[in-house]
Amino acid sequence: MKETPQKDRLKKLGNNVVGQVDKKKNPDIELPIRTLSNIYFDEKTGLVKLGSKVSHRTYMNVAHTRKFMQTLLIAAECKKIIDQGVSTSIRDLYYAIKHTIEGTKENTVEGQEESDPVLEDLEAALNTLREKLHLKADRKGYVAGPITINDSGDRIDCRRMGSSGWAIPSNVEEEMIKFENCSADFVLVIEKDAVWQRLNEDKFWKTHNCLIITGKGQPARGCRRMVNRLNKELKLPIYVLTDADPWGYYIYSVIKQGSINLSFLSDRLGTPSAKFIGLTTQDVDQFNIPKNVTIKLNQGDVKRTGEMQKYVWFKPKEWQHELNNMIKVGYKLELEALSAKGIKFISEKYLPEKIQKKDFLP
Amino acid sequence: MKETPQKDRLKKLGNNVVGQVDKKKNPDIELPIRTLSNIYFDEKTGLVKLGSKVSHRTYMNVAHTRKFMQTLLIAAECKKIIDQGVSTSIRDLYYAIKHTIEGTKENTVEGQEESDPVLEDLEAALNTLREKLHLKADRKGYVAGPITINDSGDRIDCRRMGSSGWAIPSNVEEEMIKFENCSADFVLVIEKDAVWQRLNEDKFWKTHNCLIITGKGQPARGCRRMVNRLNKELKLPIYVLTDADPWGYYIYSVIKQGSINLSFLSDRLGTPSAKFIGLTTQDVDQFNIPKNVTIKLNQGDVKRTGEMQKYVWFKPKEWQHELNNMIKVGYKLELEALSAKGIKFISEKYLPEKIQKKDFLP
Repeated sequence: MKETPQKDRLKKLGNNVVGQVDKKKNPDIELPIRTLSNIYFDEKTGLVKLGSKVSHRTYMNVAHTRKFMQTLLIAAECKKIIDQGVSTSIRDLYYAIKHTIEGTKENTVEGQEESDPVLEDLEAALNTLREKLHLKADRKGYVAGPITINDSGDRIDCRRMGSSGWAIPSNVEEEMIKFENCSADFVLVIEKDAVWQRLNEDKFWKTHNCLIITGKGQPARGCRRMVNRLNKELKLPIYVLTDADPWGYYIYSVIKQGSINLSFLSDRLGTPSAKFIGLTTQDVDQFNIPKNVTIKLNQGDVKRTGEMQKYVWFKPKEWQHELNNMIKVGYKLELEALSAKGIKFISEKYLPEKIQKKDFLP
Repeated sequence: MKETPQKDRLKKLGNNVVGQVDKKKNPDIELPIRTLSNIYFDEKTGLVKLGSKVSHRTYMNVAHTRKFMQTLLIAAECKKIIDQGVSTSIRDLYYAIKHTIEGTKENTVEGQEESDPVLEDLEAALNTLREKLHLKADRKGYVAGPITINDSGDRIDCRRMGSSGWAIPSNVEEEMIKFENCSADFVLVIEKDAVWQRLNEDKFWKTHNCLIITGKGQPARGCRRMVNRLNKELKLPIYVLTDADPWGYYIYSVIKQGSINLSFLSDRLGTPSAKFIGLTTQDVDQFNIPKNVTIKLNQGDVKRTGEMQKYVWFKPKEWQHELNNMIKVGYKLELEALSAKGIKFISEKYLPEKIQKKDFLP
């Protein structure tokens, strides 16, 4: 199934506007509504999805005029960089479209906080990723394990990347990144880089024949898309390892179901079959973790946990049980807390036992 | 010149304390003073250095007892991980030494903000780097260009790393990282990853036969040590490219002279021969950069610029001139501002012209 080329989508957008102007109509761009009112959890796919409500951005509406102009400026700049065969960052994009409108003292955009949401609108309107428009998001995250990555002709063997791992670029679309020669059985996605480094040093990926990936906190788009592709194309099971706290559980939910903000990209960024390997507050008793390395929940944690219990995607009884337990015991804990049981406890005892028993949360 | 092995330094520290206890003396650890009162700019080396003042941390002084205990706990843990041949993060270290003291409700450490400074004390006392004690700092930063890195036996060719580059690990000491087969003429250190990505996409390192490195903001220790080694061992000139603002100029000064906080490591982390390639506020006229992409200085910027003018290391007339100019024109600008002149302006015009004319600040 061949996708419509991005350039054609941009051209169509532009031609529509020109057509309306020629017919002396009020120029109008149709945009999906991206607020909570148009978001739903799609039980069938297991993804947070964008509904079908649309809004209209029109030129002759004073409340829309500025954003209308910005939308077209960004679309034009994207077409230009695609034509030039280059790519650029969203900050560069902001600078490239910024100028003072002739004969006025008004600038086209004042700050990046003005251009970023307009770009997201454009992505949603064109049903595309910014990466496909040759724009780079922030990048972070690393991979090690039995896979070879073909990045624009350079073949990178992730079995031989020393202490670094392969750095995940912001654009991991098929046009840029191809998977070759992967023999892994599963993917372990780790919230924290320090834990990734520990596991890489122990060659955990070798002894357990897997890929280890860290997103360094909340994974960037590139990392989430990478996980999505490894699961979809190579059929690799995804296990996620985070701190036992509301933030860690939220990171897991974003990897699994997608996020509200980028709901129009959920099928590209979310991985509904991902499983949660740990940590949980229940691990404290199960693995006899000393209580003095737990951290007392603060008010914000308690509030956030309550909110999460109401999300459809945390409704499964195993998650309700864990979230209830967190409130009951009144503490959270970080992955590094396992070090209190010895530096290699995580790689030699905790993870192997969880994987062997398939002791996952859904 | 062979260094004293780290383990011997740790043993000596421990044996000293045991000896004092055996002689019924008050146990005492000698520590260099690391505050501004003991910092000086060494004109000969061009580095921010630590003076010779020392303080004594003694066990029988109630104000010292807790820190004394923590110093020994950290030293003991470091010896343990060196013995095990593993390495770990400073967060893991904190968790590993944290426990409740028997028969009390007192914890050995309460938070990482308590253990981190004690670790820095230990580094200064042993005249070593945490990396040599098998501890990992945060890591960030990337390299591309004509060099092959040997990381624990894995040979990584930075000419063939696609869009990612080689991710700089936290530990780049000689024991871990060896340089092989480098044909670069110089090193360009870039504050911003987005600009690095732009230059990497244009294969700037190929057309100009150089290494391109980004520290993603203020470089982490690994990145600064890497630059230091490339300069010291391979005699490569270092050119630094940052935003034209006080923060960018500060980043440059840290790469060049070292930082006050880590002054005891300046000879390992600083590169006094580094030169500043840009941006400067003077570039705006020189390269005809549109004024509407400049950013008005705020009060904090003005104050900071004034402070920087008083630093010995910004005394050279070229820097005084630039800092005066910044105040005079009243604006700063980011590297991305060059995009207003076209996406490839930085790689095809700005940098080549600066390098060809050797138009650097000292």
